Amino acid sequence: MTELIRPPDEPVYDLAHLGRVELLTPTFDRSLEFFVDVYGLDLVREAGGSAHLRAWGDYELATLTLTAADHAGLGHVAWRAVSRQALDRRVAALAERGVTGAWVDGGVGHGDTFSFHAPSGQRMELYYESEKYRATRQKKPYLPNQPQSSVTRGVGAARIDHLNVLARDVAQARAFACDLLGFKLREYLVPPGQPEAGAWLSLMNKAHDLAITREPTDALGRFHHLAYAVESRDDVLRAADTFCELGVSIEFGPAKHARTQGFFLYVIEPGGNRIEVFSGGIHILAPDWEPVKWTTEAGGRSTAWGMRVPESFQTHATPALPMREATSP
Amino acid sequence: MTELIRPPDEPVYDLAHLGRVELLTPTFDRSLEFFVDVYGLDLVREAGGSAHLRAWGDYELATLTLTAADHAGLGHVAWRAVSRQALDRRVAALAERGVTGAWVDGGVGHGDTFSFHAPSGQRMELYYESEKYRATRQKKPYLPNQPQSSVTRGVGAARIDHLNVLARDVAQARAFACDLLGFKLREYLVPPGQPEAGAWLSLMNKAHDLAITREPTDALGRFHHLAYAVESRDDVLRAADTFCELGVSIEFGPAKHARTQGFFLYVIEPGGNRIEVFSGGIHILAPDWEPVKWTTEAGGRSTAWGMRVPESFQTHATPALPMREATSP
Amino acid sequence: MTELIRPPDEPVYDLAHLGRVELLTPTFDRSLEFFVDVYGLDLVREAGGSAHLRAWGDYELATLTLTAADHAGLGHVAWRAVSRQALDRRVAALAERGVTGAWVDGGVGHGDTFSFHAPSGQRMELYYESEKYRATRQKKPYLPNQPQSSVTRGVGAARIDHLNVLARDVAQARAFACDLLGFKLREYLVPPGQPEAGAWLSLMNKAHDLAITREPTDALGRFHHLAYAVESRDDVLRAADTFCELGVSIEFGPAKHARTQGFFLYVIEPGGNRIEVFSGGIHILAPDWEPVKWTTEAGGRSTAWGMRVPESFQTHATPALPMREATSP
Amino acid sequence: MTELIRPPDEPVYDLAHLGRVELLTPTFDRSLEFFVDVYGLDLVREAGGSAHLRAWGDYELATLTLTAADHAGLGHVAWRAVSRQALDRRVAALAERGVTGAWVDGGVGHGDTFSFHAPSGQRMELYYESEKYRATRQKKPYLPNQPQSSVTRGVGAARIDHLNVLARDVAQARAFACDLLGFKLREYLVPPGQPEAGAWLSLMNKAHDLAITREPTDALGRFHHLAYAVESRDDVLRAADTFCELGVSIEFGPAKHARTQGFFLYVIEPGGNRIEVFSGGIHILAPDWEPVKWTTEAGGRSTAWGMRVPESFQTHATPALPMREATSP
Repeated sequence: MTELIRPPDEPVYDLAHLGRVELLTPTFDRSLEFFVDVYGLDLVREAGGSAHLRAWGDYELATLTLTAADHAGLGHVAWRAVSRQALDRRVAALAERGVTGAWVDGGVGHGDTFSFHAPSGQRMELYYESEKYRATRQKKPYLPNQPQSSVTRGVGAARIDHLNVLARDVAQARAFACDLLGFKLREYLVPPGQPEAGAWLSLMNKAHDLAITREPTDALGRFHHLAYAVESRDDVLRAADTFCELGVSIEFGPAKHARTQGFFLYVIEPGGNRIEVFSGGIHILAPDWEPVKWTTEAGGRSTAWGMRVPESFQTHATPALPMREATSP
Repeated sequence: MTELIRPPDEPVYDLAHLGRVELLTPTFDRSLEFFVDVYGLDLVREAGGSAHLRAWGDYELATLTLTAADHAGLGHVAWRAVSRQALDRRVAALAERGVTGAWVDGGVGHGDTFSFHAPSGQRMELYYESEKYRATRQKKPYLPNQPQSSVTRGVGAARIDHLNVLARDVAQARAFACDLLGFKLREYLVPPGQPEAGAWLSLMNKAHDLAITREPTDALGRFHHLAYAVESRDDVLRAADTFCELGVSIEFGPAKHARTQGFFLYVIEPGGNRIEVFSGGIHILAPDWEPVKWTTEAGGRSTAWGMRVPESFQTHATPALPMREATSP
Repeated sequence: MTELIRPPDEPVYDLAHLGRVELLTPTFDRSLEFFVDVYGLDLVREAGGSAHLRAWGDYELATLTLTAADHAGLGHVAWRAVSRQALDRRVAALAERGVTGAWVDGGVGHGDTFSFHAPSGQRMELYYESEKYRATRQKKPYLPNQPQSSVTRGVGAARIDHLNVLARDVAQARAFACDLLGFKLREYLVPPGQPEAGAWLSLMNKAHDLAITREPTDALGRFHHLAYAVESRDDVLRAADTFCELGVSIEFGPAKHARTQGFFLYVIEPGGNRIEVFSGGIHILAPDWEPVKWTTEAGGRSTAWGMRVPESFQTHATPALPMREATSP
Repeated sequence: MTELIRPPDEPVYDLAHLGRVELLTPTFDRSLEFFVDVYGLDLVREAGGSAHLRAWGDYELATLTLTAADHAGLGHVAWRAVSRQALDRRVAALAERGVTGAWVDGGVGHGDTFSFHAPSGQRMELYYESEKYRATRQKKPYLPNQPQSSVTRGVGAARIDHLNVLARDVAQARAFACDLLGFKLREYLVPPGQPEAGAWLSLMNKAHDLAITREPTDALGRFHHLAYAVESRDDVLRAADTFCELGVSIEFGPAKHARTQGFFLYVIEPGGNRIEVFSGGIHILAPDWEPVKWTTEAGGRSTAWGMRVPESFQTHATPALPMREATSP
């Protein structure tokens, strides 16, 4: 039987990081071209209507799965546990709270995988066993402490960083992530007289691995954006030029987020999903970080320097895969 | 009784980060002036022959203690635990292995503190309770998710990052840190036909919180350097100009480390201790990171781009405080 | 008698650069505090209701004159000639075209000065003799090829760069600058079906020393903004944080201009004048540069990456000093 | 007859910029591969044993000619005049001083060209007529004020910047460049008790278009290095990684020059010629710039931050094309 989880006053470090995101796209070929030629990912494998891609700085075999579908949206999101025991502890915690899920085939690169639906409707997976990427030939890096040589094709996205999902009840969704998965709440936004509008959570030292913002409609499981990191703010500026040169228009940014302090820009990939190029963000060392409560009103300054958020950023999101594998809690 | 530590095949996350370093200096006033006016730290408190300083991005009250002494060197280094229970687990682990230590007064900002000597001779402290810095008036940041407004005085060091100590037996010293304190070995250097020359270890996502390099003499407990982070490589370049403008000559850098990939420069503060300005370094996500073994020969390329290491960097180090509070293991 | 000017098919290099701008302010003390503490200029001299300031990278004694007045706006703008003979050639050219002006006292740092009004209503001065700044003591730079040690106070503006004035007839105003003063037209904007909306001109290798945009009202001689350069785009980003920390809100930017490709941000100083922090801009080498005609419509993309121009940027400008010293042409 | 040159007390602006450098290489194919795949230039035309290349930011058709030869070295260097009249004035000035030369075919992209040898032995060309590069299809830039879309292949060299030649008599060589060609002396180095060791000259606002350093041997016309500019110091750092990834070892840098303050790195291309990646450098506005005299001793600090100059940088240079077309003055 699995060991009990730690007492509630201790931070839990059972999940390590965002491992993979599956995006659905109705324009598979054009989306794939975007992620390879513009965003700068490498295609690792293509099979059964899905393409598996990785950024040059990712240590795992693949971090993005692109799947042909009749609409854009989120297939699933997978989180890697720090050990097999940690994985089992999280599955036990879910079971204890009545969350239904199932052990499934983890797909390309992932071993035993537990699949379930978050209360906000997105399908999530937990796994520990993972195939590491081994560079060969020209991909071999000149420094052995990085997985492969860097890629300068397109914007050269370097490493999977975080994703943002929508939830009708943000407070419930982030409590689920904190209580059952070990996320730490870093910042949250409660505009005066309104329900919680956003929450930013992370697993270890990052500003966020997961952002949850409010779903303004009745939809369940919608996806707001996926971000890969680049190495500096200068790289985000360079990405802006690259997108323009390659004919991809920028929805928002480059600018600095107030929450997380990350430097960002957003584009919409051909299939309709929102993709971010991200750099920086506060480095969180405190094990007892006090969540920062923001009360900015909807019309207030929502980026650090005052750049206005475009309307589309508040309204456009892409749906979830219809639930079929599991029942939502 | 304290809970048992996790099975050995699981990574331990009981220590969160480097909390404080105490440096000794025979030229207290000039060293203090250096750290405040040139390095850009803020003086928090001065008492009993010691000055307590903090960088603008540190969330704790103070991260550097500067103590008047008859020689330069390291007073102690303090590591913050993630919880009280985690602190007790580490103390239990040390006791189980026969490491003698004592609960002591943690000094400015720190609660219950366990003090002991590492096998390499440096005095180390473990603590959990910590006084958080609360900015007032002009120090209040414009974004509430950072502890205070940034400082542009001098090089504007932003956040305590890591330290480098010397050990006669590097392999033994890093095994101690890994087995008893929960450090993870990230990289190590074993030149052909020589004993281990260096080891780089970290607690969570950073490339290193602690570096251990080989002590070429009979000395015990010597200190190589202390590093604060700045936000970008550009800030390191700017720091180089600032040091030159303020009359502080640069020992080494700016350049890129092969190990950790951090971007660095080193100066010697007036008291004789080596101080680094550091940025970047690989971001480690893998919970099962495979330590990278380097076999570069002594005369080989020891920085990423080939810049030669100056002789002084291999030979100059500053001594430890003579052991008085505790017996080394 | 002054030598004839060169044949019209040759570029004229008689003016070297923007030398000084005089800004009027109804809140002298607060404006001075802004330029010193926030913008990072050094106060060189204060006399007769005016303060004379310089950026650390300016080689002349002073480049900004701040003058108490009952409204914000432009006092005058001074251009330095490359030689005494060049100055006389330009004065002769003005006279030949019937532009009335007068030799006046050039004020702090400037020798013989010819003052006149541009057709767009701004008072302009031409001069050659100039007092060079000589750094003493702590201001001495560590490298002798820069006028003084750099300043990190506030945003640390480095060097006077360009100014933007308004003209009811942009095409006429830029023809005057090109034909009589030797400016080269680099880029101009003619929205379909509208009169010329903007022109960007420079003297040697810069993207612009002078921008002229369309005056939407009946006013004469209004001023849009003054820009000092910083050394990198990263410095503009850092300036954004600094302004926010010091309580100065950003009107527009940081972002990249389509025209000039400069990286910018704008704030309004306490007196009401618009001030830019600028970096980069294309480096123009071609002596026979073909002016770039832009036809972007008013509602189109007016920054390189698509950031929208705020309404105030199109409407807010500050008036000229009432004409008293000379008669406008 | 050509108009007289201006009185000697006036700066002359008859030459605009460095237009083209011809490099000789004994390993033509490998050198070409280096310049295209690693340095990031585009191949424009290949004919008669020469390849003509351009950087994405160059407005002229081609700025580097690579010519197969039995040794590395400099073929010629071409300077563009600001007008046809300016070209004639310079040719007249050369003739007046007895410099023998000849009107020759300017080759790819250049019209009427005057060829001669500098006293230091390098073949130089002056020209005015030049074919501008016109981008088509994918090369079309998204902003019309740049010649083509940027190139991120390899280090992405952006624009031809300057070259460094050797002269047995530096003072004589730079007097020739200043008196006859209109270069302005910006900085020079005279180590105590030694002859002039280096001179840095420019035509308009740059820190240098031409550097002349002392030839320690009896050779005539040797070449030290050619530099293309990139847009930021960050781009130079990125270039360092790129060179390492592509297997090209770095001879020197990245670091900051004391003279010019440019940020640099040097590599040796496969043929043996030294190539620089350069960014920044002081922006010179003063028309009456006072040349900065440096007296650093040979063993002193020769880079801004103290990085030592490698031995090879002082000794390795590549020869000139044997003189055949013209007689040296």
